[in-house]
Amino acid sequence: MSAGPVLAIVGATGAVGTTMIDIINGRESVPWSDIRLIASPRSAGKVLQVRGQDITVRALAPEVFDGVDIAMFDVPDEVSAEWAPIAAARGAVAVDNSGAFRMDPDVPLVVPEVNAEKVTERPKGIIANPNCTTLSMMAAMGALHREFGLEALVVASYQAASGAGQGGVDRLYAELAAVAGKQVGNRGGDVAEALAEAGLDPADSPFPAPLALNVVPWAGSLKDDGWSSEELKVRNESRKILGIPDLKVSATCVRVPVVTTHSLAVHATFQREVTVEAAHKVLAAQPTIVLRDDPAAGEWPTPADAVGGDPTWVGRIRQALDFPRTLDLFLCGDNLRKGAALNTYEIAEEVARTL
Amino acid sequence: MSAGPVLAIVGATGAVGTTMIDIINGRESVPWSDIRLIASPRSAGKVLQVRGQDITVRALAPEVFDGVDIAMFDVPDEVSAEWAPIAAARGAVAVDNSGAFRMDPDVPLVVPEVNAEKVTERPKGIIANPNCTTLSMMAAMGALHREFGLEALVVASYQAASGAGQGGVDRLYAELAAVAGKQVGNRGGDVAEALAEAGLDPADSPFPAPLALNVVPWAGSLKDDGWSSEELKVRNESRKILGIPDLKVSATCVRVPVVTTHSLAVHATFQREVTVEAAHKVLAAQPTIVLRDDPAAGEWPTPADAVGGDPTWVGRIRQALDFPRTLDLFLCGDNLRKGAALNTYEIAEEVARTL
Repeated sequence: MSAGPVLAIVGATGAVGTTMIDIINGRESVPWSDIRLIASPRSAGKVLQVRGQDITVRALAPEVFDGVDIAMFDVPDEVSAEWAPIAAARGAVAVDNSGAFRMDPDVPLVVPEVNAEKVTERPKGIIANPNCTTLSMMAAMGALHREFGLEALVVASYQAASGAGQGGVDRLYAELAAVAGKQVGNRGGDVAEALAEAGLDPADSPFPAPLALNVVPWAGSLKDDGWSSEELKVRNESRKILGIPDLKVSATCVRVPVVTTHSLAVHATFQREVTVEAAHKVLAAQPTIVLRDDPAAGEWPTPADAVGGDPTWVGRIRQALDFPRTLDLFLCGDNLRKGAALNTYEIAEEVARTL
Repeated sequence: MSAGPVLAIVGATGAVGTTMIDIINGRESVPWSDIRLIASPRSAGKVLQVRGQDITVRALAPEVFDGVDIAMFDVPDEVSAEWAPIAAARGAVAVDNSGAFRMDPDVPLVVPEVNAEKVTERPKGIIANPNCTTLSMMAAMGALHREFGLEALVVASYQAASGAGQGGVDRLYAELAAVAGKQVGNRGGDVAEALAEAGLDPADSPFPAPLALNVVPWAGSLKDDGWSSEELKVRNESRKILGIPDLKVSATCVRVPVVTTHSLAVHATFQREVTVEAAHKVLAAQPTIVLRDDPAAGEWPTPADAVGGDPTWVGRIRQALDFPRTLDLFLCGDNLRKGAALNTYEIAEEVARTL
């Protein structure tokens, strides 16, 4: 590694941290002179390979940030709330993927395709990475907003199990093994019974209902008036990232039995006239978007296509028949990559350019 | 069986026909003096039990309708198009669950909770049963429309495999068996490869992409401007059933790896002011709706709860934060029961009352 800033990954052994390392390993070149891996004391001492070098994971402590220029955090909200300011106080720019700082007016919320310029406005030394569901549509919505002026979004999500971390992935695989080969989920048999027979206790699940052969219209915690935290994040974070404080947003967030990649059905209303052709032109010009929109040829985005890759996949773009200046569309984005690790890393690279 | 009209079930051996028989077997009493089971020549001669009686399935032919008062059809569109008029010409009222007659101005499209009175307006002797996706929300939307005046619907669907018939169910079970125990659908492994290894040919699937660990934003056939037939059915059938010719509708229809029960995320705008409390009151008063809307207690509808039952489950009712007179909600309805067999049977019973 050449001379350059020092990067730290806090939460390096988790699902998102591991994906951050995958991304760094996959890059043709990286600007970092050194990379530190940081995790809870439980994971300290593990040795992980990063670009051919063995790096020993260190336990989270104030002094591990000394000499660090940029620290990417993927840890629970309360850990970020405590430790991102400590990293910042030790001189690092903290790029945080928790919910702790996203709506803080002194913390920019950044999607490089949309508002990369905000990375320099960081009075607290902290930059926030958006929620994975919001991120699945920001590159596309940002591009369409620049051209047509976004006014309103009605969103329904199809969210993957890995949005609930490795525990969510493990649970879905375990539930699938429990129901496979059984004629359940139909008149003949009960999913919950099949899970119980396999010894899967609902109390051990990160999901509030069976996820195999089911969909669960709940993600996050309960907020005012029946809204889930996830649904309010889609609203509030979209407004902040796009810089549209009065953007109208309604979201319904639903977990589906997909391992990784969130999908969104979006009904987007613009200030100016918009056609499918014009939207295609705008989206096809975005380097981080794969436009896959030819139903006659069986082409539309699915999670199985988008998983493991960096771009957001967009398709099923239709002009709403009864709503003026409105498009209906469908998007898929890998929630561990663009939805978390990749966007966080892209922010870190943007910051590196400003140092 | 007592004196009363004669009922025929055409397509008696299919997924929906079998559910029709289940419903008849489960009823405390039925008005029919005789029940005939009719299917393709391939299934003729099979013996099925209906309310304790062995009934031999007959092959579809004009004379099987002689003496029949009401014939319920669940067969492909082209079979209905040919045979429902033949049944009507022989004196039966045809209650048809195909798409052949739904938009015919001389054929009423009926959901008993919404427009039962239309069963007497049948100049062709044919009454149509709506598409299963539309049906999942009609009882609830009809009740809310009567009270608040429905103006617009933005719908995203989470449609079950059995919407594609028994072949869809079999395919989903086969795909689940092929991926169970494998770490696919994530960075580590590819769903399509796992299906290929298990010998599952994409060409044999009723779905245009893998459904296990995936969602597929396509159902039906391609219509103008990128819309799917399923999405246009939701629009056009909702307008006809609710009697709102200018109802604004945008739907995005998505298949999910659930065996049976369609779910819908609905963003519904009304002419008059509406609150969550007022909507709760209206919906709780409907005998065919289960209101399950207490997120604090972990209560919302899921397909695994609604499957195998008659009611539509409704929950997650929220007042839209940025859209006036608008509710966001989530509904689940068994697509083989209320979405097909049950509603068709309920129409048949309504007709029986008019004979």
